[in-house]
Amino acid sequence: MSSDKDIAGGVTAPDEFRAAGVACGIKADGLDLAVVDAGTAVPAAAVFTTNLVTAAPVLLSRAHLEQSGARARAVVINSGCANACTGDAGMAVARAMADAGAEHLDCTPAEILVASTGVIGVELDSAKVGRGIAAASSAVSREGHLDAARAILTTDLGPKESAARAETSAGDFRVGGMAKGAGMIEPNMATMLAVLTTDAKVDAARLQLALRQAVDDTFNAITVDGECSTNDTVFALASGASDVEIDDATFPTLVDTFRVVARDLAVAIVRGGEGASKLVAIRAHGARSLDDARHAAHTLANSLLVKTAVHGGDPNWGRLVAAAGRAGVAFDPSRAVVKIGDTVLFEHGRPFDDRAPDAAEHLRGTDIEIQVDLGVGTHEATVWTCDLSAEYVRINSEYRT
Amino acid sequence: MSSDKDIAGGVTAPDEFRAAGVACGIKADGLDLAVVDAGTAVPAAAVFTTNLVTAAPVLLSRAHLEQSGARARAVVINSGCANACTGDAGMAVARAMADAGAEHLDCTPAEILVASTGVIGVELDSAKVGRGIAAASSAVSREGHLDAARAILTTDLGPKESAARAETSAGDFRVGGMAKGAGMIEPNMATMLAVLTTDAKVDAARLQLALRQAVDDTFNAITVDGECSTNDTVFALASGASDVEIDDATFPTLVDTFRVVARDLAVAIVRGGEGASKLVAIRAHGARSLDDARHAAHTLANSLLVKTAVHGGDPNWGRLVAAAGRAGVAFDPSRAVVKIGDTVLFEHGRPFDDRAPDAAEHLRGTDIEIQVDLGVGTHEATVWTCDLSAEYVRINSEYRT
Repeated sequence: MSSDKDIAGGVTAPDEFRAAGVACGIKADGLDLAVVDAGTAVPAAAVFTTNLVTAAPVLLSRAHLEQSGARARAVVINSGCANACTGDAGMAVARAMADAGAEHLDCTPAEILVASTGVIGVELDSAKVGRGIAAASSAVSREGHLDAARAILTTDLGPKESAARAETSAGDFRVGGMAKGAGMIEPNMATMLAVLTTDAKVDAARLQLALRQAVDDTFNAITVDGECSTNDTVFALASGASDVEIDDATFPTLVDTFRVVARDLAVAIVRGGEGASKLVAIRAHGARSLDDARHAAHTLANSLLVKTAVHGGDPNWGRLVAAAGRAGVAFDPSRAVVKIGDTVLFEHGRPFDDRAPDAAEHLRGTDIEIQVDLGVGTHEATVWTCDLSAEYVRINSEYRT
Repeated sequence: MSSDKDIAGGVTAPDEFRAAGVACGIKADGLDLAVVDAGTAVPAAAVFTTNLVTAAPVLLSRAHLEQSGARARAVVINSGCANACTGDAGMAVARAMADAGAEHLDCTPAEILVASTGVIGVELDSAKVGRGIAAASSAVSREGHLDAARAILTTDLGPKESAARAETSAGDFRVGGMAKGAGMIEPNMATMLAVLTTDAKVDAARLQLALRQAVDDTFNAITVDGECSTNDTVFALASGASDVEIDDATFPTLVDTFRVVARDLAVAIVRGGEGASKLVAIRAHGARSLDDARHAAHTLANSLLVKTAVHGGDPNWGRLVAAAGRAGVAFDPSRAVVKIGDTVLFEHGRPFDDRAPDAAEHLRGTDIEIQVDLGVGTHEATVWTCDLSAEYVRINSEYRT
C-alpha cells in the first residue's frame, strides 16, 4: 500500500461526503456551526474523552452510536459553547441538535452525531444552534470542507485539514479529516475535536478498531499541557463509495491511512498550542512494553523542566534523564542513551557536555527531536508536545471575565 | 499529647545534637558543607527518592543503613554539586565523604550518612569536600544549626528550620529539622533534602515507620512542578537523650511531632518554589480510598491550568472539575463540590458563577485553599503546591552555561 498525502479536500476528499460551515450567532462573530454529511446512514465510529466529567454531546453521541448500530448520516458540531456542566438543560439542547439534524437531513435523530466546544458551564442557545443546523444542512457541498473546518475552531490559530489517498490491490480509497485544537484561552480547557471520513467500504466494527489504533498513535500521542477535556471527541464515518472492501488483508492499509491523516491533524494541534514556538517529537525506545514506551514519552513530554529547557534552547540531558527515571517504567540508567537531534548527550550513565553546542544548535530550530533509549527492551512510542513559554502562562492566567 | 512549635534550635533543638556549616569552596561563595552530629551512633532512618536515576550518595547511604543495622553517628551534606550521573568516580567521592566523616568523628564509615545537592553530571572535588568535613566536624556545636541549614541550600530563598516539643505522660521530647527546597535554577532539577532529629528514645524500626508516615503527609504531599530528583533524601536520627521511650502508646505522638516539623519545612519549600507567589493547599476529600484522595490532590496540584488560574486570580471551577475528572480515580460529578476559600463554586453538576467575586477575593491572598469533594467516599488528603508564573518559565528556560 502507499499513502499519498498531497490530496486536497479535507473531510470531503473521500467520495460522497459534503460539508458546510455557517455562522449562527453562538460566537460573537465568525463561523460557529459545521455539518459533515455522508449522504445516507453509513458505518460510524468514535473515540471519546476519558474524563469522568463528560459533556452532554459526548453522552448523547455515545448513546446514538449504540441505538443506531454504529451508523450515522452526519456529524453536527458547534463552537463557542461546550455545553458541558450544564445539567439536564444541556442534554435537552444536545437532543435538540440531533433532532434538527434529523429533520433537515431526513434521517433518524440516532443517525446524527453531535459535538460542542467552547466555554463550559454556560447554556447553549437551542434556537440559534437550530437555525445554524438548518442553514448548514441545506448548504452542504463537496467544496464546503474548509468552512466546516473553520466553524469548529475556538482559539485555534487556523483551520486544520488533511487528506490522503491509499492504493490497494482492490483499488484506491481516500481518507479526509478536520480538527480543532487545544486553544484554551476561552473555553478554560483544551478541547480536541476531529472528524475523519473515508470512502473505503468497511463495517462498523473494523472501522472502530482502525480508528482506535490510529488515535492511540496520534491524537492520544500529543500533549500541550497534559489536560484532557470534558468534550474531546474523534468521529469516523465510512461512505463505502470507493467500493474498496476492507478485509483482513486491507485493514492495515486503512489503519495506516487513518494514521497519516490523524498525525497530520494532531501535529497541527500541537504546533498551535498556546504560546508554543516549537514542535517537539519525543521518542522513547528500548522500552520493556508499548505501554512503558508511551508512558515514558508522555512523562518527558509533560515535564515542565523539559518543556522550559526546550523553550530556552538548553540541551539539558539531566532533566531528560531525571524525567525518564521518575516515569515509573523499567529503565536502566547505565544503558540509557539520550539524544537531542543527532547528538548523543548521555550514554553509559555519563554525560557528554562537550557536545552541548551541537544539541543547542538543533534546539534553535522549530522542529525538535528528542530520543531516550530506556535500555531495557525493544518497544517504542513517540509523543508530540510543544515548548512551555511565559506566553502560555500569560494566556492561561488571564481572568476569564 | 501536644506539640509546641514555638521552640528554637532547628536540628539541634533535641538534646545531644550538634551541627555546623562551613565553606569549603564547592560553591563559588557561601557555606556549602553541613555536618549534623548525634555524638554517638544512634538509631537512624531514611526515605530516599523513587527516581530510578539515583545519585551516588543515595546509593551509599542506603547501603550504610543496611551495614550499620540502621545506626548513624552523623549526616554529612554538601551543596553545589549533586554527585549524580558521575559514574564510578561519583561513588568513590561519596565513599571518601563517609571516610572523612568517620575519621574526624571517630566512628565507622557505615555510621556516616551522606547527601549531596547541586549541579548534576559534574564531578565532586573530593579534596575540597574532605577539607570541609574536617572543618565542620571539629566545629559542630549546639548553636550551629542555622549555619548547617544555610550550608545545604542551593538556590533556595533562605534557610528552612523547624522544631517542636511533644508532651507525653512519660515526659517531653523534641523534634528538630532543616531542609533545602526545590530551587531548580542551578542543579537542573529539584532536590529536596531534609534532616529530622529527635531526642525521643526509639528503636530504628519504629523510627523508620514514623518517618515514613510523616513524610507521606508532608514532603511527599508537596509539589512545585511534579518533578522528583536523583538526590531527594530525608534522614531521621534519634539520640534518645530525653529518655522518653517510644512504645505503642507514644508512637502516634512521635509521628505527629515529626509531621508538625516536616509540614513546616515542606510548606516552606513550596513557598520558596521558583517564581511562586502563592501557597496553595489542595484538599481532595470524599474519596473512595486514601490513595485516590492523594492521587486526585496531586493531579489538581500539578495541573498547569489550575496553577495558572491561581496565579491569575481566576476562580476557575471548570479547570478544577476537569482535572478531578481526568485524575483516574472514582469521582461523581453530580455529587462533587468545588470550593475556593469558603466559597462553593460548583455543586450538583452545576456552577455558581455569581459567587465568583468572593472566590476571586480569596485568590488575591497568598495562602490559597482549594477543596474538591469527589462525592464517592470518606477519605481525604491535602497536597501543597504553588502558582505557576511566567517567572518560573523564565528561570527554567535560561541556558545553563
